[in-house]
Amino acid sequence: MKINAKDILEGNIRSLAKAITLIESKKNEHKDAASNLLEELTPHSGKSIRIGISGVPGVGKSTFIEAFGLFLISQGHRVSVLAVDPSSPISGGSILGDKTRMEKLSQNENAYIRPTPTDGSLGGVSKRTKEAIILCESAGFDITLVETVGVGQSEYEVSNMVDFFLVLMVPSAGDELQGIKKGIIEISDLLVINKADGDLLNLAKISQQGYENALHIMSKKSEWVTKVLTCSALHSEGMEEIWKSIKEFQDIQKKNKLWDEKRKQQNLKWFESLLTENLLQHIQSNPVLDLELKKTKQNILNHQSFVPIAVKALLSKVFTDS
Amino acid sequence: MKINAKDILEGNIRSLAKAITLIESKKNEHKDAASNLLEELTPHSGKSIRIGISGVPGVGKSTFIEAFGLFLISQGHRVSVLAVDPSSPISGGSILGDKTRMEKLSQNENAYIRPTPTDGSLGGVSKRTKEAIILCESAGFDITLVETVGVGQSEYEVSNMVDFFLVLMVPSAGDELQGIKKGIIEISDLLVINKADGDLLNLAKISQQGYENALHIMSKKSEWVTKVLTCSALHSEGMEEIWKSIKEFQDIQKKNKLWDEKRKQQNLKWFESLLTENLLQHIQSNPVLDLELKKTKQNILNHQSFVPIAVKALLSKVFTDS
Repeated sequence: MKINAKDILEGNIRSLAKAITLIESKKNEHKDAASNLLEELTPHSGKSIRIGISGVPGVGKSTFIEAFGLFLISQGHRVSVLAVDPSSPISGGSILGDKTRMEKLSQNENAYIRPTPTDGSLGGVSKRTKEAIILCESAGFDITLVETVGVGQSEYEVSNMVDFFLVLMVPSAGDELQGIKKGIIEISDLLVINKADGDLLNLAKISQQGYENALHIMSKKSEWVTKVLTCSALHSEGMEEIWKSIKEFQDIQKKNKLWDEKRKQQNLKWFESLLTENLLQHIQSNPVLDLELKKTKQNILNHQSFVPIAVKALLSKVFTDS
Repeated sequence: MKINAKDILEGNIRSLAKAITLIESKKNEHKDAASNLLEELTPHSGKSIRIGISGVPGVGKSTFIEAFGLFLISQGHRVSVLAVDPSSPISGGSILGDKTRMEKLSQNENAYIRPTPTDGSLGGVSKRTKEAIILCESAGFDITLVETVGVGQSEYEVSNMVDFFLVLMVPSAGDELQGIKKGIIEISDLLVINKADGDLLNLAKISQQGYENALHIMSKKSEWVTKVLTCSALHSEGMEEIWKSIKEFQDIQKKNKLWDEKRKQQNLKWFESLLTENLLQHIQSNPVLDLELKKTKQNILNHQSFVPIAVKALLSKVFTDS
């Protein structure tokens, strides 16, 4: 699968799609090509605003991304969407379905939507989301939306890949707020209460007040206090305010030199996870060690060794036989 | 911190608490003591039914665990609760609060509740939950409840440590069901719709029907079809049916030799995550490699090296200098 960096830099979508498939490939013969392509493109990347979008199932993420994406395009931007789905690690399948859930956006020439189902890796997030961001930026998309599901680890990982983290909520009062607050507030830069229309409009306003009070007490970020907005993705209402808030965040962060600093720290995290991954690959690529690894696993299956001891034994071999 | 395996085997709770603190310790001088203690106790472990309990914030997990735990104790069991919270990786703090949220249970002499906040490790789940289960079993607890929050990776990891995975739901109709079904159904052995009381009783019954229909279509497990029950944790209603269903699952799994098989596979997963962790520790414990690691990280911070290439370079040193 030969892909020309030039084609991607010229915004050729088919080449971009191929490139993401290449970097997601687990085949050894693809690894070097992928690594070289990324090295060549990285200097051309980094120019987009990377926005994480999260929220539990049912909150209306697809509708929101369609509405927000189309709004951004109407403002002259080009929008790529990386849809990450950590909620189905066993099948590796995506509950997010395909592009049909964002029909108008996926048909727009200034949008590119890429579903990247998780492969059940420890990461939770697709192992190659970071690389996919680099590729989309190289293809000239100046906004990257990274979508994720659920509460917890996957949010944390996506928040380590983006500049701005937006959490969608459904209107709710009282109890529901309690549990969710702390974890979400720590990583979110903006809470958006969706479905602020029809019968739910009032409840949405009540929730907004509730979250604002909670944030007032709990928020730690000094240079930026997490905001709470409402919107109706269904009627494309509230998109402008959301975008305004993101731009405001960007201005403040850049003024405080925190925008680049955050990305540097994110590169460190990327390094650490790639290192772990490659350490394991090294063992498996060495016939002697791979045999040892297989034997060890068999002993564990036969209850013949205690796991921590088995790990110690294998490690001693890894760092002598190699 | 000297801990006697004998004291734990005799059910001494203070020793158990100390032991869990020891295995959770990141201090090098504690690692061998922890490993030895675990090796000594492992032959005495494995005798409890390990039950994962999950559900999004607001579903009433604390109330449920208090009610279910007290029911199990009334049936003559001893119950340990490991409360895992992956939703707040940044502070490492727990949104679950402390024992006060399960007041009656925590004061019962046949219960032991241990909150284990995540340390933001890739795992999402506390790195030592597996070890904590071994310790609690060694102390004579014949039921282990492992609590987790959220949708996605953390559930997946806890489901890799337990025999039975129970997911709590709130009564809901229509939309909310759609998104959540696939991921949850793949790992859950039992769905329990909580808050089946008062005004929500009817909605609970409707949800139950909705999930049963969904399961009927989607369920894969041939030897066990995920059940759907309702309960009122608030009024301790439905606990007996839930326990009956767990026992039924155990009987079927043991008859099909799947009970032990599952635990063997779980040990393999434990091995893999421990291996990864120790590979990194090896690098940091070698002064030459640790210096190299620090230099590499500095270069990444200075945008002087492309992450995948930096990983390659470091690896080549790891497997020659050592």
